[in-house]
Amino acid sequence: MINQKSVQLGSVRSVIRELFEYGKKRKAQIGEENVFDFSLGNPSVPPPAEVGQALVDILSGSDPVAVHGYTSAQGDASVRAAVADYINSRFFSGVGADNIYMTCGAAASLTITLNALLNPGDEVITVAPYFPEYKVFCEHAGGRLVAVRGEEGTFLPDVAAIGRAITPNTKAVLLNSPNNPSGVVYPAGRIAELCALLRACGEQGQTIYLIADEPYRELVFGDAEVPYIMNYYDNSIVCYSFSKSLSLPGERIGYIAVNPAMPDSGTVYAAVCGAGRALGYVCAPALFQLLVPRVLGLTSDISVYRRNRDRLAAALEEYGFKVVRPDGAFYLFVQSPEPDADAFAERAKQFELLIVPSGSFGVDGYARISYCVSPDMIERSLPAFGALARSYGLTGAKG
Amino acid sequence: MINQKSVQLGSVRSVIRELFEYGKKRKAQIGEENVFDFSLGNPSVPPPAEVGQALVDILSGSDPVAVHGYTSAQGDASVRAAVADYINSRFFSGVGADNIYMTCGAAASLTITLNALLNPGDEVITVAPYFPEYKVFCEHAGGRLVAVRGEEGTFLPDVAAIGRAITPNTKAVLLNSPNNPSGVVYPAGRIAELCALLRACGEQGQTIYLIADEPYRELVFGDAEVPYIMNYYDNSIVCYSFSKSLSLPGERIGYIAVNPAMPDSGTVYAAVCGAGRALGYVCAPALFQLLVPRVLGLTSDISVYRRNRDRLAAALEEYGFKVVRPDGAFYLFVQSPEPDADAFAERAKQFELLIVPSGSFGVDGYARISYCVSPDMIERSLPAFGALARSYGLTGAKG
Repeated sequence: MINQKSVQLGSVRSVIRELFEYGKKRKAQIGEENVFDFSLGNPSVPPPAEVGQALVDILSGSDPVAVHGYTSAQGDASVRAAVADYINSRFFSGVGADNIYMTCGAAASLTITLNALLNPGDEVITVAPYFPEYKVFCEHAGGRLVAVRGEEGTFLPDVAAIGRAITPNTKAVLLNSPNNPSGVVYPAGRIAELCALLRACGEQGQTIYLIADEPYRELVFGDAEVPYIMNYYDNSIVCYSFSKSLSLPGERIGYIAVNPAMPDSGTVYAAVCGAGRALGYVCAPALFQLLVPRVLGLTSDISVYRRNRDRLAAALEEYGFKVVRPDGAFYLFVQSPEPDADAFAERAKQFELLIVPSGSFGVDGYARISYCVSPDMIERSLPAFGALARSYGLTGAKG
Repeated sequence: MINQKSVQLGSVRSVIRELFEYGKKRKAQIGEENVFDFSLGNPSVPPPAEVGQALVDILSGSDPVAVHGYTSAQGDASVRAAVADYINSRFFSGVGADNIYMTCGAAASLTITLNALLNPGDEVITVAPYFPEYKVFCEHAGGRLVAVRGEEGTFLPDVAAIGRAITPNTKAVLLNSPNNPSGVVYPAGRIAELCALLRACGEQGQTIYLIADEPYRELVFGDAEVPYIMNYYDNSIVCYSFSKSLSLPGERIGYIAVNPAMPDSGTVYAAVCGAGRALGYVCAPALFQLLVPRVLGLTSDISVYRRNRDRLAAALEEYGFKVVRPDGAFYLFVQSPEPDADAFAERAKQFELLIVPSGSFGVDGYARISYCVSPDMIERSLPAFGALARSYGLTGAKG
């Protein structure tokens, strides 16, 4: 008998993946242009031109044995120093190369951090809605994910409810802002309130680590600011990825930053190194490590996402849908006009709209629309959203 | 209290890494050219020219959103088909794209395979000497590594001893040929004998999987052939990496091939997908996946390694050392002239020779010499090896 948990994880497709595969089949049936696929969080704008240029420069200008060789397990020292300098110049001070561990993207950042921190039976609190793989990652690390529903309407962390969910087994709180799937950015005041709660736990002898999962940090619109967690709480770890900011999701490059102000910062960093080793992460991909210092601070043209958000959110509200107005990421959370979000997403399919029901994100009654798509597809999809609204008899429906 | 196993794995450097760090310090003290560092298995010859050319072609000739986007978790379908075709044309028939899972290199291939197969308490038998991380990988997957010493002098698998080591908890046998650290290639006859043993277990109701860890498959010299395990045993899985054959160790690209003749091949493949997901491997690096179909079958100029082996092995034997004559990889296993290999490696340091004592490979009394270095360094190191031999009063010592 082989490992049944692995079999199950590999056999049962995620709802998102299921929908994506349905979309591929449907496109083959009725034509690509007639299916409005909002299922996946795959960046739709190219990386900044500097990325391609830097990669070619590195490949043509350097000794290939050095470029493609092993780096140290925590990442090339000069790359880590560059990341630390960038963090210090933008967000926080005191971060050094030895607080940075380069990873194969956000998922690796999370699995390594969780395997560094958790003992069997430990609990990790997160705010629902949340990225479904959090549960998988926590459980593989021997822990249990405890989801605390965000505040009704805003989906901001409900600090009082988080306080009630803390038990002697709580080892960490895992935040994701800008949030997948809601697009909500957690404001500074709310973060400060949460950190006060965690500090109070610390004073009573229970250290709770705060993990910030930040692949969408740069994808914010208007005045929204994403607070840097290290400024609010010493026992904090930032899990970062360049997947979304640079449109490089397939290349698997990111980092873990351990707050240097953490009392046992060195031990936690060692545990990060140890967990990376046990999981088989020998080093992050070398070429893309070398790319990082050349493109720190650059982003893809995210104005496309903002325009998509504005167009889509305004249209949906006009049709009578209730929408969580997103400040960041490239997701829009729309309230289901009927209690059963699965039925809502299923009905949307009849209008060739592929949207993800919220159950797998840990809340009922919503659907996620990934608007990292072409502006043209958004335009073409609007009549379908209008017809969907009319089918529910929503007020203000047009189209 | 955070995870102490992770802290320990991240705090205690491997013997190899310790030696490498010592070497860096020593080179700073007495000059790079005066330290003979044989500690690491880092390829010393550049990738074939086609690699750099293909990477630049892909970067400049394709849509960057497609190149750098997520692939499916098991790898791009056309890449997997190309790998399957290559295997079918060279080694075995019947492998399809859905038997192939692209990975972030050999370590990922192994951790994913072990997490797919093992339940808590399961045992994995390997042949000593063995790559030290095997123990780390097995333990993280909840299992236990059982090392069975290879035959005296040849270090070939001792099939009778393996038979005696099998218990009801034995889930897999893990073979590494060409072997790190001995360089030995396991011949077809011995593989067949081992597989007959495993088949007999199967007939008695115990399925034991055979895992072939093959990063050194192409690094063989003379007439040596590396048998393809799928031809010998149905319940077999090949863990491959392009790190050594293409000199791309830092880029983390390899694959898992599940034998299509395995009775529960589909279930094992699903478990591989599930384990990869739980460990945080979203997909193998996309650019290097796309490289694979363009360079399948190519290798770096491995004739350098053969010349290094010939020169070094002949010289060491002339000085009176006993050497396991390696047919492959780029390692040479030399017998310690005193029982304590740690003392031997320590004495070698006095002659500025950095070689790895065999304890961490699971056998006593040897040291590993990694000859993936410049031929020039080999030449310059020979007087030091000669002096080391003389210090032990070895017969035939000269230099």
